[in-house]
Order: sequence, then C-alpha cells, then structure tokens
Amino acid sequence: MIIEKAKSYGFCFGVKRAVEIAEESQNAVTLGPLIHNPLEIERLAKNYNVKYVETIEDIDENVKRVIVRTHGIPKDKLQNLKEKNVEIIDATCPFVKKPQEIVEEMSKQGYDIVIFGDKNHPEIQGVMSYSVHNRVYVVLDPKELEGIRLKEHIATVAQTTRKINDYLKITNYLIQNYKEVRVFNTICNATFENQDAVRELAKKADIMIIIGGKNSSNTKQLYNIAKEFCEAYLVESEEELKKEWFEGKKHCGISAGASTPEWLVEKIISRIKELA
Amino acid sequence: MIIEKAKSYGFCFGVKRAVEIAEESQNAVTLGPLIHNPLEIERLAKNYNVKYVETIEDIDENVKRVIVRTHGIPKDKLQNLKEKNVEIIDATCPFVKKPQEIVEEMSKQGYDIVIFGDKNHPEIQGVMSYSVHNRVYVVLDPKELEGIRLKEHIATVAQTTRKINDYLKITNYLIQNYKEVRVFNTICNATFENQDAVRELAKKADIMIIIGGKNSSNTKQLYNIAKEFCEAYLVESEEELKKEWFEGKKHCGISAGASTPEWLVEKIISRIKELA
Ligand code: SF4
Ligand code: SF4
Repeated sequence: MIIEKAKSYGFCFGVKRAVEIAEESQNAVTLGPLIHNPLEIERLAKNYNVKYVETIEDIDENVKRVIVRTHGIPKDKLQNLKEKNVEIIDATCPFVKKPQEIVEEMSKQGYDIVIFGDKNHPEIQGVMSYSVHNRVYVVLDPKELEGIRLKEHIATVAQTTRKINDYLKITNYLIQNYKEVRVFNTICNATFENQDAVRELAKKADIMIIIGGKNSSNTKQLYNIAKEFCEAYLVESEEELKKEWFEGKKHCGISAGASTPEWLVEKIISRIKELA
Repeated sequence: MIIEKAKSYGFCFGVKRAVEIAEESQNAVTLGPLIHNPLEIERLAKNYNVKYVETIEDIDENVKRVIVRTHGIPKDKLQNLKEKNVEIIDATCPFVKKPQEIVEEMSKQGYDIVIFGDKNHPEIQGVMSYSVHNRVYVVLDPKELEGIRLKEHIATVAQTTRKINDYLKITNYLIQNYKEVRVFNTICNATFENQDAVRELAKKADIMIIIGGKNSSNTKQLYNIAKEFCEAYLVESEEELKKEWFEGKKHCGISAGASTPEWLVEKIISRIKELA
C-alpha cells in the first residue's frame, strides 16, 4: 500500500517557524502558549526548557529570553518587554507583521484605518496598536461602520485567518461610501492550502487518515472534505488505528490539522506501516 | 395648483458648466457635440456662433478657440490641439478630470491600472491616455482579467456613468487575487440625484410631467419612477400637454432628462400655467 502525505498539512508556515525558533531558544519563555496543542507545549518544555507565561508581569528575574509568538504583540507591551531587560526573540509570523507595517505606514500617511477582525484577538490587538493616530476601527460587520463618518481616504487590512467573502462585505461598503479605499488583502491562505491539498489527495486515495483533535474545527473540515471522495478516519493518536481499515487498500492518504505536530504524523505513519 | 420642480433634474453639474463655458466663448468650436440634444446644439450655434467639428483635422485656419467637452480628450490629441495654435477652452468635467489625474499619479507610482468602463467611450479614451506606462487594462467584466497576471499593486477607477454594483464585481475580483488594490470610486452620482429627486417629489405630487426624449433611457427611467407614485406623463414639447390631465389636480411635479435644457423646462411650465 502506498502511503502519501498531502502536499500541505499540519502546522502552517508561521507556526513551523515559531516552533523552530523556540527549539533554538533554550530556557526562554513564550508570552502566551505558542500553539494550541498541549503535547507540543509539553515537548518544548521537556526538551528545550521553553515554558510559557500568561502576561509580562509573570516574567521573573530569572528569565533572560522572551519569545513573541506568531500573533505578535501590541507596541506598548513590546515597550514593556524592552524595559524588562530581557532578550526579545520575535517569532511574529511575517504574514502578521505585514498588516502591522501597513497600519503604521498608512496611518502615517493620514489614512483612516479599518481592520476587519476581532478586537479581542491578540493578533488584532497587535495590529491596531501600530497606528500612529486613533482613527482605527475594528469591525466584523459593515453594519458597525454605518454610524461613523470616516475620512474620504481609508486603508483597510484583514485578520489573517478570516474568510475573503466576509472581508469583501466590508470593502464593498467602504467603496460605496468613500472616495478612496486602499484594500490590502492580508488574509493568509494557510488554512485553504491544507484544504486544497486534502481534496487533491482524497481524489486519488482509497483511504484517508486525518490526524488532529476531535474538537478542532479545522481538523473536522479536513475530515469532511476527505470523506466526500473516499473512506476517511479522524484520529487523535496511533492507538485508534484499526487493522481492518487498511485491508485491500492500495493508496492511503495522510493529512493533519493545523495544530498537529510532525512527530505525531510520523508516529501514525509508522503504525500504519505495521498494520497494513 | 402648485407647480414644483424636482430638487435635481435636467443637465448635470458638468453639462451645465460646459454650456455656460460655451456661452462665454463666442465663435469657438467644440470638439464633438457638447450635448445629446439637437435643439440645444442649434441654440448655441445661432446665439453664440458656437458650432462643432467631429475631429481635430476639421479645424480650419479661421478657428481661434476650441472647447474640450465634458468627456475630456486623450493627452496626444490635446497635444495636437496645442500645435494648432488655437486657444484651448477646457470644459472637461471636474469629475472626469479626477480619474485622469488619478491614473497619471498612480501610474507614476508604479501601480498597474485597471479602468472599469468602455474602451470606445471618449471619456475612457481620455482617462487611459494619462497613464505614463502601458499596463492599463480597460474592462467591463472581471472575466476579462482572468487571463492576465497583473502586478501585486493595482489602482482602479471607474467610468463616471457606470453602476457601482458592476464596479464592485471588478474590485472584488482584484481584491481576491492581488495584495493591494487601491480603489477610487469615481462614479458620478448625477444620474442618481435626478432619480432620487423625482421619487421624493412624486410621493407628494398628484401629477408628474417628465420632459425629455421618448428614446432617452435616462428620461424613461425618471418616468418609470414617477408613475409608481402618481399619474405621470412623458413629453418632448409643450404641444403634447393636455388640459384634462390637470383637472382637479393640486400639486404638479416637474422633472427632466439629463439632456433637456432649462429653457425647454420653463416653456413647458408656462404652458402648464395656461392650461391649469
Ligand atoms: S498568518 Fe498564516 S502562516 Fe502565519 S501563523 Fe497565521 S495561519 Fe500561520
Ligand atoms: S461626470 Fe457627472 S457631472 Fe460630470 S459630465 Fe459626467 S454625468 Fe455630468
């Protein structure tokens, strides 16, 4: 039986990069958990002594190095960190840096800023903090803009994980109502890449194993796409695999949710090889 | 009976301005007809000796002054005119100047240019000529962009008389496919102003007289809106008015298509006063 991994699966570019940075930063702490996966957090703590703290206040004198995670942090918190006299290791994803830089530059040029996203999300709190003025509006729905009269020149960015069609609702509203709207498409296609890859592979395979949390919505989406095309199973660990699934199968496809580490994928593949 | 004119009707701002300019420019010629109304063209020729020529080649040595009409003209033709040694009187509508200036400035900054409009329309031929490079794409439908790979930074303008919803189809396509789309909403709302005003007035009136060509689509639209709310008639001249229309009426509303001159409106109002 051929075992083939999807062209894109598991960690996105930004998380992969952040984990590598963490592995090269022994004894550092991360500000907030680096990733939504307790096993991976545990591995970083055990193998590299990289732990996490919830807030800057929790950083004590023994800490020498602090990792900023993919979401980035607000400018004022970065300032607080600098005052702590610790080495700052910046693992902000480049795709998150981009909207931060755009907001800074466009606000300097005098544009009003509209951010499509959730104002309670750490990424957005970081991005909005980069404006040099306070005409920054964070919205999820064009209705929230109806009561406000913005300037005629507006720049807009989106939270990296949003859907383009929802962003277009915002930009359509702005274009209809203002003279210039400078639309930066800052949506990251990592999520879609995993989805496209699972679709492509499931069309050729006769069985698909999707690895990830049963409560993870992005993992469930991968599973739902896979089972449209062939027999598919969602597993959290190798123990769940069953010998009979693979009987008579010729081509087994593998994909994994965005929080599933590579070592878990490898463990599962080894077990499939034993069973098949 | 009260006779009330709609808040906005007849000539738009740009045409009104161009006609005034023509009236102040005796013995000049216009490059192309100034307006889609033969009676008004005739009046300008009779009263001010302002006639029109079809092309620059038709301008003979006796002509001292040339009027550029609301649509504007391409840069190279303006250059040809300058070489003719005539005084150039620029009646380009300021709302048409705007996209010309935007295309010039954005192309200088290196943006690819997408123009939503008809490449055979004189306005668009003028606007596109202002680009300093040749990466200018004039389209009516997003499908026309599908085969082309533009640069990641795009500026876009629209023909002044287009519908916003059609423009949004273009901008949505661009936003989905490129990193930065700088959307300038250059659509002129003159058409909508006349429509909104006719609706507002028709709600209060018990009869509406709409003045304009029976083949003019913008006049017919005004008529269709009016008759949703009250008794309405479309007339081209005062001879068509009938006494019985006004019997028992208290409030007569007046509107006119975009090519209907004010003097015709006044003539019709005088006749209504005689009849009512
Ligand atoms: S922006 Fe994209 S690549 Fe970067 S961390 Fe977020 S999902 Fe991953
Ligand atoms: S742009 Fe608007 S105001 Fe100017 S001539 Fe055209 S319709 Fe009239």
